[in-house]
This record gives sequence, C-alpha cells and structure tokens, in this order.
Amino acid sequence: MSSLDALFRPRGVAVLGASTKELSIGNRVVRNLRDAGYTGGIYPVHPGETTICDLPAYAAISDVPGPVDLVNIALRADRVPDALEACGRAGVRAAIVHSSGFAEAGPEGAALEARVLAVARSHGIRLLGPNAQGVMNGDLDTRLYASFTFTPLAAGPVTILAQSGGIAELMNLHLRRAGVGLRWYASPGNASDVDLSELLAAAADDDGTRVILLDLESVRDLAAFRDAALRAARDKVLLVVKSGRTAAGARAVASHTGALATGDAVLDAVLDRAGALRMPSVQAAVQAATAFARQPLPRGRRTAVVSNAGGPGIVALDEACALGLEPASPDDATRAALKASQSPYATVGPLVDLAATAGPDAFRAALSMLLAAPEVDGLVLSMVTPFFVDCDGVADAVVQAAAASDKPVVANVITDARWAGVVDRLQSGGIPVFEFPEDAARAMAAMARLAAFRARPPIRGTEGLVDAIRVQAALQRAVPGPDGWLSQADAYALLVAAGIPAAAVVPLSTPGDLDIAARTLGFPLVLKADPVGLVHKSAAGAVVLGIADLASLARAAASLRERFPGAPLLAQRQVSGGVEAILGVVVPAPGVPLVMAGLGGVSVESARDVAFALAPLDAVAARRLPDSLRGRDRFDACPGGEPADLDALGDALVRLSLLASVLPEVREIDLNPVAVLPAGRGVFALDVRVRTAGMGEMGTASDFRKSEAVPIFAGRRAP
Amino acid sequence: MSSLDALFRPRGVAVLGASTKELSIGNRVVRNLRDAGYTGGIYPVHPGETTICDLPAYAAISDVPGPVDLVNIALRADRVPDALEACGRAGVRAAIVHSSGFAEAGPEGAALEARVLAVARSHGIRLLGPNAQGVMNGDLDTRLYASFTFTPLAAGPVTILAQSGGIAELMNLHLRRAGVGLRWYASPGNASDVDLSELLAAAADDDGTRVILLDLESVRDLAAFRDAALRAARDKVLLVVKSGRTAAGARAVASHTGALATGDAVLDAVLDRAGALRMPSVQAAVQAATAFARQPLPRGRRTAVVSNAGGPGIVALDEACALGLEPASPDDATRAALKASQSPYATVGPLVDLAATAGPDAFRAALSMLLAAPEVDGLVLSMVTPFFVDCDGVADAVVQAAAASDKPVVANVITDARWAGVVDRLQSGGIPVFEFPEDAARAMAAMARLAAFRARPPIRGTEGLVDAIRVQAALQRAVPGPDGWLSQADAYALLVAAGIPAAAVVPLSTPGDLDIAARTLGFPLVLKADPVGLVHKSAAGAVVLGIADLASLARAAASLRERFPGAPLLAQRQVSGGVEAILGVVVPAPGVPLVMAGLGGVSVESARDVAFALAPLDAVAARRLPDSLRGRDRFDACPGGEPADLDALGDALVRLSLLASVLPEVREIDLNPVAVLPAGRGVFALDVRVRTAGMGEMGTASDFRKSEAVPIFAGRRAP
Repeated sequence: MSSLDALFRPRGVAVLGASTKELSIGNRVVRNLRDAGYTGGIYPVHPGETTICDLPAYAAISDVPGPVDLVNIALRADRVPDALEACGRAGVRAAIVHSSGFAEAGPEGAALEARVLAVARSHGIRLLGPNAQGVMNGDLDTRLYASFTFTPLAAGPVTILAQSGGIAELMNLHLRRAGVGLRWYASPGNASDVDLSELLAAAADDDGTRVILLDLESVRDLAAFRDAALRAARDKVLLVVKSGRTAAGARAVASHTGALATGDAVLDAVLDRAGALRMPSVQAAVQAATAFARQPLPRGRRTAVVSNAGGPGIVALDEACALGLEPASPDDATRAALKASQSPYATVGPLVDLAATAGPDAFRAALSMLLAAPEVDGLVLSMVTPFFVDCDGVADAVVQAAAASDKPVVANVITDARWAGVVDRLQSGGIPVFEFPEDAARAMAAMARLAAFRARPPIRGTEGLVDAIRVQAALQRAVPGPDGWLSQADAYALLVAAGIPAAAVVPLSTPGDLDIAARTLGFPLVLKADPVGLVHKSAAGAVVLGIADLASLARAAASLRERFPGAPLLAQRQVSGGVEAILGVVVPAPGVPLVMAGLGGVSVESARDVAFALAPLDAVAARRLPDSLRGRDRFDACPGGEPADLDALGDALVRLSLLASVLPEVREIDLNPVAVLPAGRGVFALDVRVRTAGMGEMGTASDFRKSEAVPIFAGRRAP
Repeated sequence: MSSLDALFRPRGVAVLGASTKELSIGNRVVRNLRDAGYTGGIYPVHPGETTICDLPAYAAISDVPGPVDLVNIALRADRVPDALEACGRAGVRAAIVHSSGFAEAGPEGAALEARVLAVARSHGIRLLGPNAQGVMNGDLDTRLYASFTFTPLAAGPVTILAQSGGIAELMNLHLRRAGVGLRWYASPGNASDVDLSELLAAAADDDGTRVILLDLESVRDLAAFRDAALRAARDKVLLVVKSGRTAAGARAVASHTGALATGDAVLDAVLDRAGALRMPSVQAAVQAATAFARQPLPRGRRTAVVSNAGGPGIVALDEACALGLEPASPDDATRAALKASQSPYATVGPLVDLAATAGPDAFRAALSMLLAAPEVDGLVLSMVTPFFVDCDGVADAVVQAAAASDKPVVANVITDARWAGVVDRLQSGGIPVFEFPEDAARAMAAMARLAAFRARPPIRGTEGLVDAIRVQAALQRAVPGPDGWLSQADAYALLVAAGIPAAAVVPLSTPGDLDIAARTLGFPLVLKADPVGLVHKSAAGAVVLGIADLASLARAAASLRERFPGAPLLAQRQVSGGVEAILGVVVPAPGVPLVMAGLGGVSVESARDVAFALAPLDAVAARRLPDSLRGRDRFDACPGGEPADLDALGDALVRLSLLASVLPEVREIDLNPVAVLPAGRGVFALDVRVRTAGMGEMGTASDFRKSEAVPIFAGRRAP
C-alpha cells in the first residue's frame, strides 16, 4: 500500500468549491468524477447549494456522510488553509489544491503555500499542488477523474506524470486518439509536498502501469529523482520529455515554476543509467507510448519495412535507418518464398514493396514470412488504402500475422475517414497506427533503443578498486585554497591515491630539485608554474614544453619565476604520441556525482564534444562514454596509426567515478589534457584541477547551483 | 502558354480503359473528373459500354465528339502503344499513362516504354508516365482531377510535385485537413518524358502557385533540376522532401525507380543556392506549406510566444529557440502595457503566458500589442481550450489581431472535437493550426529560414577574377595520368594560374635542384615523393617535414628515392601557424561544379565536417561556407590566438569556383591541407590533387556516377 493510495484509490472524494456554474473548475471536477464512473462516493461541498450536477451537496466537509480520503479544493487561495484545516479534522488523507495564487504568484503566495503545507503536514494529509491540475486513475475498480480537463477517461496501461498540466492533457488527448487508455495521471502543480519523483517512485511499484510518460521542467532533488528513475525504468517503459532545453526555454521554466531548470546533460546521464528514453518531442513521446503499450519489444535493430506504395515505404525505411535501425536481410530462401507469394510487381529489397494491388493474402503472406524469419526483429508497415483493394481484409490479415508473432509490428496508414474501419481494426488488434511513415519508423526506433538499454549488463560493483581510506587520507592532507581548489601537488597526490595515472611530477622548491627532476623524470620534460587561481596555464604562458637538458630546465625555471613570482613550479615528464582527451567529475547536486569524458584540444573548446555518465561506473559502462562522442573515431588512430588505449581510459574513468563516490567533499575534477597512448601503453593525466566544498558550505544550494552550470554549458545544446 | 498546358488545362479529357467496375483505376479517374467538377468535356472510352459513371461512353478515341487535349490511359501495358497511336491521330496533345509494367518492371518493360515514348514524340504528345498517378489542377476555371487517388480536390495556392504518388497523396490529404487547397498536383511515375524538373519549371511560371511541395527520390539531369529550382524558388516558396537519405533508403530508391539517388550534399548545395527549404519530414513539409500558404513571411527571427498554458508554451519556445529563432524582447513600455492588460496571473517573459482564464479581450490585447511591437517579427500561439473560457471568442480575437498585422501568426491548439469550431474559425481566418506546440514553432522557423534566404544578396558576377585563357592554357600544358590525375607539378601550376596561393614548390630532378630549393624556399622545408596513384602521402611516409638544412635535405631525398623509386620529388616551403582546412571541387554532373570547404586534419576524417556550395561563388557566398561548419569556432583562433584569414579563404574559394566553372574538363580538386594563417597573412594550399576527365570520357554517365560518390560520402549523413 503506497503512501499515495489516498490520492489514487480514495474511498470517497469531496469537492470543496463545487459549483453549479457549468464553466467553473468546481463544477467540472464534480462532473468529471461522475461521468468517468468513479466507484467511490462523490461529495460536492458548498455552503448554499443542496444539489450539484445531480448529486447531493453538503454545506461543509464535516457534514459529508461517507468516508472521504481525498478532497479537491477549488477555492480562492486565501481560503485554502482554513478549508484544509477542516479537512484534516474530518479525517481526509489527501488533498488536490487546484487553486492558483501561491508560490507561482510571488512572495505573498509563497508564504500562503507554506501555511497550506504546514496545515497538511499537521494532519498527515498528502498534498498535490497547489496550482495542480489533478489526478486520474483509469483502473476499472476506481475510475477516478479528479481533474478539470476535458479528455474522457479510458482504462489502459499508460501512466502520465507531468509537471505541466497542459502537456499532460496534450499527451492524454493523443493517447486516446490512438486508442490507448490511461492508468494513472497526475500533474502536481507547485509540488510543495507530493512531487514528480515521489509519483514516479509510486508508479514504479504499480502493477497496472506498463508505460510512464513523464514531462519534466526542472528537478528539485536530483538524488531522489535519480533513485525514482532507476526504480521506474527497471520494469516499466519510462519516456521523458524535458522542457527548458534552450536558454530561453530554461528562463521561461524559471518564471513558470520558480525552480531552476536542471542541466540537460545531467538529466541525460541519469536517464541513460536508468534505461529511460528521453524523447525529442511530445508527439514522439506519445507515439512511442502507443507502441510500447501495444507491442512487444524487438530483440534487436533489424527491421523489415513493408509497404504497398514505394514512396512512403522508402520514407519509412530512410527514417528507420537514420535513427539507427538496420534493414532486415532475410536469407535467400525466405526472400525467394516471399517473392513467389506476391504479384510480379512486388519488389523484395531493403523495402518489401507489395505494390498497390496487394490484397489480404499478399499482406498475410509477406508479414507471416518476415515475422517468422530469424533475421527480422520487428516490422514497420506503411500502407495506403487503394479503393480497389479489400482494405478491411488487409487490416485483419495484418492483425492476425502480428498476433501470431512475438515481434513488434507498427503501422503507418495513409487514408481518410472513409477507411476509418481499417484504422479501427488495426488499433483494436493492438497495432499502433500513425499518420506519417516517419512516425512509424520513429516508434520502432524507440522500441529498439529500449531493447538495447535492457540488453546492457547491470553495473558491477567495483568499490574495492579504489581504496577509500587512502583517497580520504590524501584529501585530508590537502590544503584547499579559498575557493576550494587544491594545489597541483595535492591534486596529483589525490590521483595517485586513486590509482589514476598522471605524468610524474617533481615540485621545484630548492635549486637542488632541478637535479632531482632531471634524474627522476628524464628529458624532454615540461615545466609549469601553478599560481593561485590561474585556470588556463598554457594560454597564460605558464607551461614550457620540450625542455631538453638541465641547462634549459634552469633557464625555464628562472623565466617562470620571473613571470609568476611566488608561484609553485612543477617539473613533469613529457608524454607524447597519444590522443588528447579530457576527463572529469562534476557534482550537480549533493550525492549525484557525474563523470565526464571528451576529446581534448580544440574539440572540447569548439565542438563541445563531451559525454557524461552517472557515477559509479564499471569497466563496461565506462567504455560507452568515449564511444558516445561524435569524434570517437579519433581513438582509432594515435599518431602512428595504432588504436588508443581505451581499456586504460575506461579504467581511469571507473577510478574517477569511485573517487567521486567516496569523497562527497569533491565538487569538480578536471583532468585536461589526458594523453591516451596507444593500446597497452596507458593513459596519463597531464594537468589536473580539483575543487572541493569550501569550509562549511558542503551541500548548500548555492554551491550546487554554481557547479551545475558546468554540465549545462558542456552538454549537447541546440545551436 | 506553357508546353504543359494540355496536361494542366485541357479542353477535354478522354479516359482509355474507362470502366463500369467501381474498384478500377479506369472507373475512378472518370469519377474523380466528374466529382471534382471538371469544366471541360469528360469522355470515357470503352469498346463495349455506352455509359460509364452516368456519362456517355465512346467505343474509340476517334468517336469522341468534342476536342480532347488530354487522355488518361489505364490499359494493360502492351496495349498502350497502339492506343497512344490512335490518340495521336485524333489530335490528343497530352497523355497520362497510369498503367504499370514498364521500365520499373525490367528490360522488356523498358523496351515497351521506349516504344510508347517514340509514339508520343512522333505525334507531339506530351507524356506523363508511364506508371504515373496523375495530375490535378484546382484552379476554379479548370477543376481537373485526372488521377485515381481519394483526397477530394479543393482550390488553393499549393502545388504538389512528387516522384512518389503515395507521398503526393499523403501531402494532399494533410493539406486538406489543414484547410489548405491545391493549385497543381502531379506525380510523373517513370517520367520518360515530362519529369519533375520540367514540372517545377512550369510551376515556377504559374501565377496561381504560391507554394511548391516537391518530393524527390533522385534527379536525372542535375543541371536541369538546378535551373528549375533556381527559377521556382525566386518567387515561390519551394519546400523539398528527399527520400534515399540513408544507404538503405538509397538502395530502395534504386530498386523503386531504377535511378541512382542524388547525393544529399549535392542537393543541399543546389537548394541552398536556390533559396529552397529542404524539409526533414513529410509532416514538416506539409505543416510549413500550410503556414506559407496562409501567412506573410516574418522579417526576421524574433518570435513572440504566447500561451494560455505554461507547459505547452515553454515547449513551443524551446523548439523555436532550438531551431534558431530568437525570443522577441519588446521594450519596457510595451511589456508594461502588456502586463497591465492582463490578469495578475499572466507572466510576461520570453514566454507570454496569459494563464488559463484568459478570454477574448486578453488575447486580443496581447496579440495586438506584440504584433505592433517593432521588436517582434512573428508570433507563435499555443492555446488549450479551457471549458470555462469563451474559446470561439478567443479564436475570433486571434484572427482579428493577425489580420490587422503584416506579421505571421501560427497556432497550436490543444483541444478535441467539442471545440472544432475554434479550429475552424482560426483556419478560416487564415491562421495555420497545429496539434502540437513543437509543430507551430517549426512552421515559424521554416518561415524565418526562408526570410533569411530571401535577405541574402544575389551572387555577384566575379568572372574576371580568374583569367580563363590562362587557366585553360595551364590545363593544356598538363599531362594527365591514365585516370585523369595531374602530376603535383601540373596541379600546382593550375592553382598558380587561377591565383590560388599554394606553398612554393621546387621539383627535385637533378642533384643541383637541392641547392635551388634551399635558396628559393629557405629552411625549414618539406620534402614529398609523388608516386603515381598514391593518395595519402603522409600516411605512406612520402612526406618529410621540418627539414632544417641542406644536408638533411639531401639525406631525406635519398631516403625517399629509395622508398619510392622513380617517383618525382618536390621540395616545398613549410608553412605553419595556421588552422588546417580542406578545400575542393567536385562535379557530380556535367556542368554542375560544387565547391567544398571543411576543417582539415582529424576533423575531415573523423567528423566529416565539410560543406558544399554550387559554383560560382562571390565573396559573400564564399564566406558562408566556412561559417556553416560545425567546428567554425576553430577559425577564431590560430595557434597564438589570432583569428584566421577568412577573407583569404573566401577569395580562394571564389577562385576555385571560377576555375571549376571555366574548365569543364575538371572533375575533382582537393586542396588538403590548406593552411589558413592569421588574418592578413593569407591561405596556402600545402597539397593539391586535380583530376580531369580522361580522353573521350567527358560527360559520360559512368564518369559522373563515380565522382558523385564523393559528395554522398562527405555530406552530412545520419549515423
């Protein structure tokens, strides 16, 4: 029994602010509850009415005869605290506050919202809102429509959880048009108590939910969201739409909900780890939900595309391939049998084009053979409805062939109202139907993406790899600067403690250190000055490369001392012959460290080709990070042509992720550049910057908001 | 009077193969002609029937009483030549052959198609097809529906020209749903006579066409297509959907039409020059057409986004910004007035959110003020239809505000059938209505993209810049190898003749040349071996960099002579300190040279960051080429931090484009790498390869198919 039971499965619902005025929220909620066939008691509450929407009305919540677990409140904002107080005394367990005029309206509203929350907490009432659209539960035992929207309730396997009520309605509307029903639906408005993370965690445990459509604008508690997403995507399909992707969008989100938008790259990393799909548009999300709700997952990407009109079939095939699906290649025997089953006008290639005259038998034969072929993981159908073909029969044949297979089939049907029966037959038979060929291909691609996520091995425990005691000791020995930055020497020591290879360094404090550096490091070597606060050493001329002998070393040291008086000097072994990468750690929220990998040099500056992953990583997950870079081919050829040591790169990433996991004080680590040498020769950090939380500021919001800017900046952003 | 008049404006239409069987093409065409209200005579022709679809039928074309300009032929393929012969004798001027079984069916069909074409030509009949879907003309004076599709004909400003009949129908269907009517419609099937380029050129001259939706799979004659596209996009809106973008899609196109797909990068270059918009999907194309058909072009990218539901408004704003639009920023006075005109719940930021309670007055005030603001170029509206608002009144207010402005307004309406009147009012009032907020933003972005195209200055004549006589002479002096490749020395000479700077070279033939090279070029210099057929010199070890003195030069020469016996050696001035680029010319079809620019080094190999443009270029157009690269930031900082010499780069591109324009023998030029030095210091080609047409092979198809592979490979391709 979830703590949100009173919200989704109440025994009775009272509506405070119920109204006889048809065009009011208080009227609409009563009507929606009634029209949806809610199985519990519906109790309109109004001081002056005796009947509302043909139901007996009550003067006060205390007058309601039956048990009331949930109230919908559609009163003026300033009247909400007292009303909720009365509800608490009457034993109400959950409240949906539709009223606006709270935190979204300014400081006075925020104070009022705090009062409402305090009242709720004092009575143990779970609060959805204020400024909330409401809740639905399509379960036939409940049929709860506690919201003021207009799309009728139909039962089904899809749960909609949406920060925006408008997006929730848009999703529900188009799900319904696609013939797919609803399990849960909730839009929590200001979310002062129940928020999307808690709703998501509850949906994760709900047996009736198969697919979750999640609309996000911002995430308040990233760790809670991460945990809920990991849990939800384990057994359900989690499809996420995120607003505030662009700078203007993020500003609009801020003024819309008063919250900071969550960095896109951070969200991508969380969703990737969870195995949730981030969808590029509301339409794409709803269309994918339709497919997931109706069809099994494909086992792979090999997709047969069948059409009775070449052009739309090619468009579907094109889009499928552009999204990473592969055209299925059945063996010669299957292709021959398929060709033999069709008219001479049919072509059997990457597109199986049955030609416009194909009837039920032709479709049945083609789909059955293709779905039975071991080289086919799924099937995309694009059909027009020629007036000289028995299209109803074609629809039945498609449904039968799909039902006899455990592989997914999705369809594009190009038709008009005269063939509505064709679409109905397909949809009733569980075949998702889309209007454009690209839509069908995109839905299949989403299914294949999820199948690929599901096929990944779980992250293996690698905690022992980094010695927690040793790295904690290294950090304790360090003396952070005023902004939390460690000196180069302390930062290198931390890397060494974690077993992350760095090019050897020798601090030059006394004249004798020159000799030590020369003997320890050999030539050529690199000399660096490390003045406090200098970030871009090379650009500032604080790095001298290619020092070939002791005399040059002494000259370079003198020159850097002159330019950067008082700055520590470090000699470092010069490493060359590798690919330049950048590795790092960012911590956008307490307890949520992310590891970053990117291509170094010009790429990180101009192309921002970096990828993020949630810590901790294991070796397999770490390898996916460089693989996800646009410029990943660069690792195929070090100078000289050998492939780069991606195993060593992966090991360094795993160690970085563990370092960040065991050191909550760490805010940011930058290894830039890192030389990734040819396979077998390792990786070496050539420069390192580590920032820790300053004294007493650990975990404060301002600290984290500042560091959050890093992944937002570095993530994949639209131009 | 266009040569296609008989096709689009016939005085009478006969249907050969007309049939009383309802489910036949021959019946459907007669019915469509009749139901659409065709203003000319309709003459079903059938040897045994006297009446078809309530119209008198005739035994033969020679029996038809009235003038017949056009025939639709729906006979078995082998009967078409004789039937067409009879049509020719009867004075028919155009024929649509619906029948299939021609070139698309194999060699026998191809022979039959050649016979049909010969018959047509012998009688001066313009032929659409065979295997064609047909033609429509929505003009109220004509109302011609000479096709077997099902979407009813409505008059409007959009012309659909489609290689695929299925895509044509899909476009028409959704245009009609959006309340937008048709001007011309044609799908030419095998296009043995009238093809898409000729149709496009005709539509370019048609006053009734405002928007052209063009569906392409392949382009047979690239020069003809280029000319038609340039002409059509000058005064019309040309929206292009291209199939065969991916390898599998291209193979499917090949089996679909027997034609080679046209390289995507080539098409992009042609469309960019023409100012036509390539659309990412059929849906996006139709939606953009809806907007262009109804609304004026914006003057710029500054877009106001207005909503009555925050979430969908943010989604629209996000998508708008992701597509390059800018949120409009009205001045403080306007913002204050706007705020004052609204309820306290409204927010005025990058999104103007009027809140759900906003009624007609609120919408009227907001739209009027925003459309009047000089900082606003266009307006995207996203609205839900709350049941407590006068939504019909809102629709009327939106229509009135838009009508009073010369700026575009597009809308997303989230609603269901109960508010169909709202959508009708908006559409009748000329406001394009889309179901998802992203769609509205995308339509506005397409309009802004076209506005930006229209704002570009025309290409200025720069023919005098390159001395045609001089470059022709340089080419005549060259001795191409068996594959048409010039030697390094000849290739450098050609560059010099065109005024394209290359790092100075000295061929080393005799021992004395070492001294000459040293004196001419200075040190350090580069030594290269140039064996026949070697493409990747560096990888093969045929390049020695950084030769510091005469002795080293002699040693390097001896070593290269040993490794590459008989290969010419070239000494070259070593140029350093710039950004590495790659420039080039490809010629995908006779008379259609393209210029290419990309980032050099690893970028061209791993990221394929290259851009193409149609030759010739002027300085302004040439500058857009490096600007369109993903890694364009690289040009901002040469080693040392100075910006690169983009003026010199542009000049080299202009000269390359002119060189290619005046030398039709040139097939391919690669300048790779090119050192782009800091501003004011120029660009220098460091290696050059030039391929010319071999003897006697100029302009053969095989030659061009081979070279076409270059832009297909190098273009922006989906992963």
